[in-house]
Amino acid sequence: MAFPKQVRLVEVGPRDGLQNEPEPISTATKLELIDRLGAAGLSYIEAASFVSPKWVPQMADHREVMQNLARLDGVTYAALTPNLKGLEAALECGVEEVAVFGAASEAFSQKNINCSVAESLARFEPVLERAQAAGVRVRGYVSTVLGCPYEGEIAPAKVAEVSKALYEMGCYEISLGDTIGVGTPLKAKRMLEAVSREVPMAQLAAHFHDTYGQALANLYVVLEEGIAVVDSSVAGLGGCPYAKGASGNVASEDVVYLLNGLGIETGIDLDKLADTGTWITQAIGRPNRSKVGVALAAR
Amino acid sequence: MAFPKQVRLVEVGPRDGLQNEPEPISTATKLELIDRLGAAGLSYIEAASFVSPKWVPQMADHREVMQNLARLDGVTYAALTPNLKGLEAALECGVEEVAVFGAASEAFSQKNINCSVAESLARFEPVLERAQAAGVRVRGYVSTVLGCPYEGEIAPAKVAEVSKALYEMGCYEISLGDTIGVGTPLKAKRMLEAVSREVPMAQLAAHFHDTYGQALANLYVVLEEGIAVVDSSVAGLGGCPYAKGASGNVASEDVVYLLNGLGIETGIDLDKLADTGTWITQAIGRPNRSKVGVALAAR
Repeated sequence: MAFPKQVRLVEVGPRDGLQNEPEPISTATKLELIDRLGAAGLSYIEAASFVSPKWVPQMADHREVMQNLARLDGVTYAALTPNLKGLEAALECGVEEVAVFGAASEAFSQKNINCSVAESLARFEPVLERAQAAGVRVRGYVSTVLGCPYEGEIAPAKVAEVSKALYEMGCYEISLGDTIGVGTPLKAKRMLEAVSREVPMAQLAAHFHDTYGQALANLYVVLEEGIAVVDSSVAGLGGCPYAKGASGNVASEDVVYLLNGLGIETGIDLDKLADTGTWITQAIGRPNRSKVGVALAAR
Repeated sequence: MAFPKQVRLVEVGPRDGLQNEPEPISTATKLELIDRLGAAGLSYIEAASFVSPKWVPQMADHREVMQNLARLDGVTYAALTPNLKGLEAALECGVEEVAVFGAASEAFSQKNINCSVAESLARFEPVLERAQAAGVRVRGYVSTVLGCPYEGEIAPAKVAEVSKALYEMGCYEISLGDTIGVGTPLKAKRMLEAVSREVPMAQLAAHFHDTYGQALANLYVVLEEGIAVVDSSVAGLGGCPYAKGASGNVASEDVVYLLNGLGIETGIDLDKLADTGTWITQAIGRPNRSKVGVALAAR
């Protein structure tokens, strides 16, 4: 197997990372974070989530964020839009790309978005149609691809089925999420093999959490299989909502360090990225969950 | 490549992990730690270091530790013995195995043990001879195999040369240490390829630090190459003396989780091991650096 020459990082810190923060984070801080990430070379930043403030109060300022971020050339600013109402609001703010969020686990879908997997897919259809009509690309997330906090093991065939449905519905990229970070390399490889029989490898992304410390080992394996898009969060922002105090999203700095070592280009300035991680964790009073970030700051 | 069916973990927490702790740790705590590790299924525990208390005050009670630990059947209790004086003291305490500590970097050798690499090897010769006469096996550490805090890059050929010298001198196993945790998978692979041309793979061990979060990815690759002995530290005890606040030894819990996922046997009870990590970090007031340990404790 050969590694890809280039990997695109999808930076989810401002959205997936901050959405679970218990204390309010100012719009100005979010905007500065997004700005710094772009300046560090991240070319794709998920900036906000257009969901009801009733469910995710931390993302209530999604309009202000999307309308006021400094748009850098070559950077895509995306938003999560789980339903048509959210999409319309995002479109009004000039969003360039949106994302929908499905699950490979029935129990997770029920607990997380109050509907079955099939129902969630049906809900996404009008979102996809409207986005396509507006010329906006849609990314599809599939969560719990390597395990579910409620169901435990998830069959690779189920992940492949949901991925295929989102792909056929029009999602240009499917992001495969190990939502609770329980995966290990062979499991990740088997899951990817099943999914890539249904969706082309070039349309797949890895969204791995580091809750059990396995994210980089898992990424190594899927990169070897041909994955060239990786989701990550600066400073590992976000933690794990299913295990208080544990790690969530793999840290962008740690991914970039791995990719640099593999000779894979990212266009990202690791020092600037690490400085951004140090700054945001200090600004919001959270631990820096990037080992690279901590090590570089300690030099 | 095929993974080994079984991997032996060399638990270095009580020695490599605790030796840099600034606050005194009681002999009773050390003994309980060693006892719990054995009960969790660790079959090889580096229990003490027979060095001058002037240099490593935390290991000043090495005699008390070695003489009072509860020896479990099937568990090897080893000690670091960098010179003949240390070895004699360890032999008096009934040590079963000892280890010597060399470096692949001239600058590191000078700063760490005040002599050149060649001089350090010459010093080990009488240690090896005396140990062999006493029927005690000797393990050889080679540090800075993937980078040096003073020299930077280290040539794989240099690692191979030092490893070969220790092996030919009589060390039955050579532990390859990424002392500052800077390695990435391809670098680890290339280093191992160079060393395994001089020393049989079955006589090599991986001793990787997780300072930049890469340890498990690096371990995955060397396991694939045939490494079947891994050094680690419960709860990642030890930190990194070269970057304050950063991670040091890879956490035993995280390694066992990886190995379990790969279907590789270790004989270790992960829950008991994680409980031991929770207990010792609380006992000495340090953060638990095992992501698996933190995640399991948060369930």
